[in-house]
Amino acid sequence: MNKLILVTNDDSIHSKGIKELIEVAQLFGDVVVVAPDKPQSGMGHAITISEPLRLFPFKGFNNAEAFSCSGTPVDCVKLAVFEVLKRKPDLLLSGVNHGENSSTNVLYSGTMSAAIEGAMEGIPSIGFSLADFNADADFSATKKIAENIIPSVLKNGLPTNTTLNVNVPKLTFNDLKGIKVCSQAHAYWEDKFDSRKDQFGRPYYWLTGEFSDIDQRKDTDLFYLKQGYATIVPTHFDLTNYTAIDALKHLNHEGEF
Amino acid sequence: MNKLILVTNDDSIHSKGIKELIEVAQLFGDVVVVAPDKPQSGMGHAITISEPLRLFPFKGFNNAEAFSCSGTPVDCVKLAVFEVLKRKPDLLLSGVNHGENSSTNVLYSGTMSAAIEGAMEGIPSIGFSLADFNADADFSATKKIAENIIPSVLKNGLPTNTTLNVNVPKLTFNDLKGIKVCSQAHAYWEDKFDSRKDQFGRPYYWLTGEFSDIDQRKDTDLFYLKQGYATIVPTHFDLTNYTAIDALKHLNHEGEF
Repeated sequence: MNKLILVTNDDSIHSKGIKELIEVAQLFGDVVVVAPDKPQSGMGHAITISEPLRLFPFKGFNNAEAFSCSGTPVDCVKLAVFEVLKRKPDLLLSGVNHGENSSTNVLYSGTMSAAIEGAMEGIPSIGFSLADFNADADFSATKKIAENIIPSVLKNGLPTNTTLNVNVPKLTFNDLKGIKVCSQAHAYWEDKFDSRKDQFGRPYYWLTGEFSDIDQRKDTDLFYLKQGYATIVPTHFDLTNYTAIDALKHLNHEGEF
Repeated sequence: MNKLILVTNDDSIHSKGIKELIEVAQLFGDVVVVAPDKPQSGMGHAITISEPLRLFPFKGFNNAEAFSCSGTPVDCVKLAVFEVLKRKPDLLLSGVNHGENSSTNVLYSGTMSAAIEGAMEGIPSIGFSLADFNADADFSATKKIAENIIPSVLKNGLPTNTTLNVNVPKLTFNDLKGIKVCSQAHAYWEDKFDSRKDQFGRPYYWLTGEFSDIDQRKDTDLFYLKQGYATIVPTHFDLTNYTAIDALKHLNHEGEF
């Protein structure tokens, strides 16, 4: 039986990145696409619970059954797994995202949240992101990296409850220094809001900000991306800070208060 | 100088849970509220990047400056920190959520994502959730637990990059067995979609499902909540599975491909 590969993203089913990822996926199996009908960047792990979801067949990919979904990237994965597909897929690929999803951006990323949801459903899952926001970005290096990684994941699986966060710098394949498996950098957004007035004089705010890398470690995704490597961060969904459990045991309380 | 305490949630500024949390917060400092103007449950770590945000003064809490925000819980934290507040708050409290946010639900939870965002901004942050979806739920036990935890966090701070995920079972304070600092259980949703037809015969889907606790460990939040304890999971935003870095080093690649 052919491998069954689910493809999704957050930039929408109309983006170049998903089209390119589908082409790679088709080298390795039968592809089904369930992806958002509109851009869903920054949606994180959001799910739609107060509105119904829409799902319509989408014609636009050669030899790939595809559906556009009105919901978030995580909604797409859930609808694919529990409504569209007849069996659990052998692999979930999310992306290729137009823009980097390194460091703490993994938390905001719809692309990576879809891959994390895949891992939660027990599906080997990989998220791909290219450090180029251009709608017509050149995905050729990312595609070659995907062609390197996918066969290994199909053959060996992935560590339990773990997905891969793959980021590729904006370089030609020949200029890439290599691939590094590494950790998520600690960085954050020094946010600013652009405050304006509407036609009634009432304020509205646009989120903006500058990215601030405060991590001094030399083995993080941000560090290696700056050096010209593609990076792979094994990413899981256990957010427990185990080392902190002991430090907080003074909060334990037994019996009567 | 009085402590400055930021309060937010995901059930909206109109919910009972946030009103009760504000009452507790006011025991310990000056309170500013920035909370969603409508329910934002399940929004995870979503941020609003393609639309502007609205922020309006909200009159409805005694002695607490308050603003309702058109965005997600994480938007509320960002707007509060970078637009509303004159200085970084000493504490961020999120909740009290109407409904449990234990185990992997932390990823979907707007309440906990707001607390995680607070930790990302370097603010000691705590999320509170009560295992009762009732709009008129009894928050008295949760309030007493908050009164126990808050002074300790204000005095000692929290481990670096770590927030607290506090869950309280639906019990009276006297029936609680105590408080346990523990780990996030691994559970997942066995989702189902309720498929219906609209007036034009086109399908739409409601997300539904059953929660499935597959974690055999006896030191998780789900385990202790079932025993009648309130639970505190130290929760961080480094999603790296460090133990998997070695297992995946065969994916490392240096130099030319």
